[in-house]
Amino acid sequence: LGGMNLAAAESPSLVISESDITALRQASGGLLEQSMQDNKRLADAALTEGIVVPWPKDAGGGYTHEQHKRNYKAMYAAALQFQLSGESRYSKYVTDMLNAYAKMYPTLGLHPEKKEQTPGKLFWQSLNEAVWLVYTIQAYDMVADALTDEQKSHIQNNLLFPVADYLSKGQPQTFDKIHNHGTWAVAAVGMVGYATGREDYVAQALKGLDLSGESGFYKQLDKLFSPDGYYTEGPYYQRYALMPFVWFAKAIQTNDPDKAIFAYRDGILLKAIYTVIELSYNGLFLPINDAIKDKGIKTEELVQALAIAYDITSDRSLSDIARQQERVSLSAGGVALSKIIASNSVAPYPYESKIYRDGASGKQGALALMRSGNNETGTLVVSKNTSQGMGHGHYDRLSWQLYDNGNEVVTDYGAARYLNVEAKYGGHYLQENDTWAKQSVAHNTLVVDQKSQFNADLKEANKKPAEQVDFVSGELADISIGRINTAYEGVNFTRVQALIKPESVEPFVIDVVSIQSDAVHQYDLPLHFNGQIIDHNLSDYQSFNTWKPMGEDNGYQHMLLRGQGNSASSKNRLTWLLGDRFYSYTYGHYSDSDDSAKTLFFQLGANDPNHNLRRDQGAIRRLTASNVVMYSVIEPHGEYNGTAEYVTNAYSRLKSLDYKVTQSGAELTVNMGETGTFTLVLAGGDKSSGPTEAKVVKEKN
Amino acid sequence: LGGMNLAAAESPSLVISESDITALRQASGGLLEQSMQDNKRLADAALTEGIVVPWPKDAGGGYTHEQHKRNYKAMYAAALQFQLSGESRYSKYVTDMLNAYAKMYPTLGLHPEKKEQTPGKLFWQSLNEAVWLVYTIQAYDMVADALTDEQKSHIQNNLLFPVADYLSKGQPQTFDKIHNHGTWAVAAVGMVGYATGREDYVAQALKGLDLSGESGFYKQLDKLFSPDGYYTEGPYYQRYALMPFVWFAKAIQTNDPDKAIFAYRDGILLKAIYTVIELSYNGLFLPINDAIKDKGIKTEELVQALAIAYDITSDRSLSDIARQQERVSLSAGGVALSKIIASNSVAPYPYESKIYRDGASGKQGALALMRSGNNETGTLVVSKNTSQGMGHGHYDRLSWQLYDNGNEVVTDYGAARYLNVEAKYGGHYLQENDTWAKQSVAHNTLVVDQKSQFNADLKEANKKPAEQVDFVSGELADISIGRINTAYEGVNFTRVQALIKPESVEPFVIDVVSIQSDAVHQYDLPLHFNGQIIDHNLSDYQSFNTWKPMGEDNGYQHMLLRGQGNSASSKNRLTWLLGDRFYSYTYGHYSDSDDSAKTLFFQLGANDPNHNLRRDQGAIRRLTASNVVMYSVIEPHGEYNGTAEYVTNAYSRLKSLDYKVTQSGAELTVNMGETGTFTLVLAGGDKSSGPTEAKVVKEKN
Ligand SMILES: [Zn+2]
Ligand SMILES: [Zn+2]
Repeated sequence: LGGMNLAAAESPSLVISESDITALRQASGGLLEQSMQDNKRLADAALTEGIVVPWPKDAGGGYTHEQHKRNYKAMYAAALQFQLSGESRYSKYVTDMLNAYAKMYPTLGLHPEKKEQTPGKLFWQSLNEAVWLVYTIQAYDMVADALTDEQKSHIQNNLLFPVADYLSKGQPQTFDKIHNHGTWAVAAVGMVGYATGREDYVAQALKGLDLSGESGFYKQLDKLFSPDGYYTEGPYYQRYALMPFVWFAKAIQTNDPDKAIFAYRDGILLKAIYTVIELSYNGLFLPINDAIKDKGIKTEELVQALAIAYDITSDRSLSDIARQQERVSLSAGGVALSKIIASNSVAPYPYESKIYRDGASGKQGALALMRSGNNETGTLVVSKNTSQGMGHGHYDRLSWQLYDNGNEVVTDYGAARYLNVEAKYGGHYLQENDTWAKQSVAHNTLVVDQKSQFNADLKEANKKPAEQVDFVSGELADISIGRINTAYEGVNFTRVQALIKPESVEPFVIDVVSIQSDAVHQYDLPLHFNGQIIDHNLSDYQSFNTWKPMGEDNGYQHMLLRGQGNSASSKNRLTWLLGDRFYSYTYGHYSDSDDSAKTLFFQLGANDPNHNLRRDQGAIRRLTASNVVMYSVIEPHGEYNGTAEYVTNAYSRLKSLDYKVTQSGAELTVNMGETGTFTLVLAGGDKSSGPTEAKVVKEKN
Repeated sequence: LGGMNLAAAESPSLVISESDITALRQASGGLLEQSMQDNKRLADAALTEGIVVPWPKDAGGGYTHEQHKRNYKAMYAAALQFQLSGESRYSKYVTDMLNAYAKMYPTLGLHPEKKEQTPGKLFWQSLNEAVWLVYTIQAYDMVADALTDEQKSHIQNNLLFPVADYLSKGQPQTFDKIHNHGTWAVAAVGMVGYATGREDYVAQALKGLDLSGESGFYKQLDKLFSPDGYYTEGPYYQRYALMPFVWFAKAIQTNDPDKAIFAYRDGILLKAIYTVIELSYNGLFLPINDAIKDKGIKTEELVQALAIAYDITSDRSLSDIARQQERVSLSAGGVALSKIIASNSVAPYPYESKIYRDGASGKQGALALMRSGNNETGTLVVSKNTSQGMGHGHYDRLSWQLYDNGNEVVTDYGAARYLNVEAKYGGHYLQENDTWAKQSVAHNTLVVDQKSQFNADLKEANKKPAEQVDFVSGELADISIGRINTAYEGVNFTRVQALIKPESVEPFVIDVVSIQSDAVHQYDLPLHFNGQIIDHNLSDYQSFNTWKPMGEDNGYQHMLLRGQGNSASSKNRLTWLLGDRFYSYTYGHYSDSDDSAKTLFFQLGANDPNHNLRRDQGAIRRLTASNVVMYSVIEPHGEYNGTAEYVTNAYSRLKSLDYKVTQSGAELTVNMGETGTFTLVLAGGDKSSGPTEAKVVKEKN
């Protein structure tokens, strides 16, 4: 495979091309102004610091690791500043840096702190090296005009090609892997191909080292996103994966427009961008699986992706996201978005109730989102009927969250990790991420006999997704039915959740968990929530002055029991206050045996010697039965106003909540007084399996 | 005392006068537009509801109580709308309401649910009746033009005079009381005097029933504010008291300008308004004593007072407060403030470091505020060296709080109360307000032998204020010295607190508590704080998996012990993260005996069967000694950025912290590395009393 040369496109022509530079040079004001100043500041700081290319020594977080990371961001900013200003001091800086690296790289062996499976040279792991090359090749491409042919071939032969070869031929186990790390590698090598005319690199990037198409960019597009653009690890990792996909696709679009990469697989890349936008509430990503809760749509990856998506679609509603991001990328798309915002002609982003199927062929369950009102202060119910989501996944099939009034109300813990905080185990995932955050009891789903789903065995869990049995979106109600019969040996359970949207009052949630088993089990149904408990109506409530852990393992060892009361078979109610709104949780159960049902109030804090866990709280509905249906209603209501000193509708509207079995299945009737009576009609289930169809009927009272 | 008549000033001429109406009629846009629409909406809703004047039956929170409250607000809004629009439907509504009340009032006996000492007729307590009359007389005054003389005398003789007589002659124990309730009564009666020409009412309102001047408005101005305009119960109740003071003063200014009421006692009323503004951080009042934490400068009382203060002072910096209030009062002052904001010429309010002396003559200690940066994101230290603050006061002499980066960092619990939330003990102060919120251990001050100051005996505490020994404000540092030798039998303690302001880095706090006693005691020094603990360096740290209460009474019964470690004599450190900033607390002690010092980590939750307490956390420094100095440094530092995924300066800058006794007193030397070394030099103390002078010296490192 000789270095066949296609005519190197005139630069810059990767993610940034001539049209971007022209647009940027003519634009001014608005969010763009801010982004331009940020880039200039970053570039000028780099020039002041000068050329610092230390011999590779440290692992992640250490000095040389961080310096090489700063270097690729500095080269990119300086090269972009050169394109914007034409000032040679910027191109000179980038050239000096490239030459310094070209001098060092050929002499490098593997990194002293190298990671076994995927060692790097500049960095301890090749992933960082690929990210480095993705930024560095763009810096090279943006200063290429200012380089002599001799300088170009020196940098290519001593830096660009050696790194590209190392990341491809040198690391087939990563380059050919259908995995996000593989995407960074193919993006880096492919871009080197376009920028230097190395057609072989482009071909390998697209179709894999052996050009068979069994690996490479196209295969990754086929395998790593579901047909709905859902990335199986969830939004936190999807936004991380987005960058190499979107940047390399833009480089392909620039150099090979006829490949129509953004239309590939029914426009899968645009779907992936829109999905990341939609898997968020009030600016923050849904914290499912290993996710840190302060990550949201302002993240750099989505700022870049948004501008590129606008380039392709001219979809004005994307400006509603840029408005919230409060910055734009330095590109033609960024210029356009900045103009729309400055001219006050932002169109609202059309958030809808829908499902996002999981799995490459969309057959690994789904994430169901049920919405009412806008995405900053409206109501959102998330039902997680997905697959495991690989190593970063949690054992939380059929768990759910509620977002309302701008807040996370019914919560998912997210990951136990303090990114980049060295004092917290070097900023890595904490032990409590395994002992708590991944466990089933840390979620709002059924926990059988105090064990986690699949006994928290990843190999098992990876084989067994949940099922999205049905999803209906309507004016009166959205309804999602999820099912899993493999989470616990001999226990099947189905969860019907509905977001009811009465015209006159706040929407409310109906939740029905139908559990079937031949054997008797202890069933726990936790509800983790934010807010101050106002009151409840449980009988014989015991409040404990000594708080003890609720178990020894599977997450229970972290939960301190602060009180418990007996649950009646119906109309138990718990009310709390979060911000200026009340929430009432009214629940009951229908079971074939006397169940001594209880409600247990808990808070995190036990077996946490290093104060690693947030002191979150919740309540567990516990009963012992074989077949049982656990139903509930969660209602936002009223207003608490501290400034004007008034409170309205502090009490639940719910008059009665009755579950009854019918010929065709069952009915849960929710009488909400003046608001009307709403009946969730369930059908299609039988002795051993839950309902497969549901609808909501409303009658006036 | 016959009804001497001075010529009734043409109306309206109380708080609102002709000049206000003219200004309002000509103005438009900005915040004013919003306030005008709000008033119209309130007035129109009242007209739609019609005349509903129920026979008095319910206590506070009950239907008739709330309806009569809605009525006075409705009459006020409708009367104001009549002045603005001239539409007679508004004046007709007010006239009908006044006539309905004039028909009922003479037939009323005392209220069925009457409060023993201060019974009302319309309401269960006369305070509500006074508030009712303050609003109603203004409504009457604003519609008087549209009334015939016959209607006016009917309303005066059957309503205004009977209520005024009941609130004055009928309730001398309130009218002549030097207390906020007395101020509402004199304001109501005085305004009736001005609006109807009853000179006797005006005179009694100003000088008391017997016209001796031993009670009445002037005496209240003399007694209820310190010379610095500080109201002894603290900002939460000061803003409540403000309304009658400011409204009646405006009525006096309108009708008796020569009294120059706003200049009385060196402009005490303007000082009181400015003080309420300054006893806040990031829009919320300092939650000292019985205070609910969501109350802030947006409160109605301060919106009214601000416009009146602007009328008198034309002080442009008041518009900085109106900007944050996001509304203005419907008055000439409100119009002017709205214009300044609309024209973007707001001047920043000049928040300064200073003390607010307590006590009518300023000799009951003081509240010391030490500031750096602005009042929304800057740093504020509050040292509470005041008196008890009467019945709503807490046993917290020499306690302190830290506000920084927009957050409450070192906290005061405030009151245990959910205002207007009936399910929480009718919205009244909860039992936990006494068992926890008032207790010394709920504050950041010395607790001796697990008892509260003055054994929580209010009669004792009312007699014994703290002392503000010294206060110095400078460029490098502000220093406050507080002392109390009466809180605990045989124990004197002095607290020196300094806010150090290095140019290059965040300001930090030095805190030195010097304790003298002949006997050995257990000394607890709690620190209540918001944020997630990152780490600490205590030796032999025990983390408990079963959390037990730390005592049986005085607040300890609510505190669950989650862990403890041994404290060295110096350089103990605890670091936590709040929002995007780290805080490090480095502390030590200098004592004459082996003290087996410990640090105990706790959280609230025990003996709280009704979930009434927030689950706040903190750490207690505990040691056993007779004479000891407990010193510490609290440092805000670094940045945690979740969006751009970086962390800077996560570690304390403090290199060493050394306390040594010197000839003249003592020195605490704080070596902050590059930032320099700062020495707190203490002098003036002796064997049995703490330092009386302090200064800060800085040396380069
Ligand atoms: Zn999770
Ligand atoms: Zn307090």
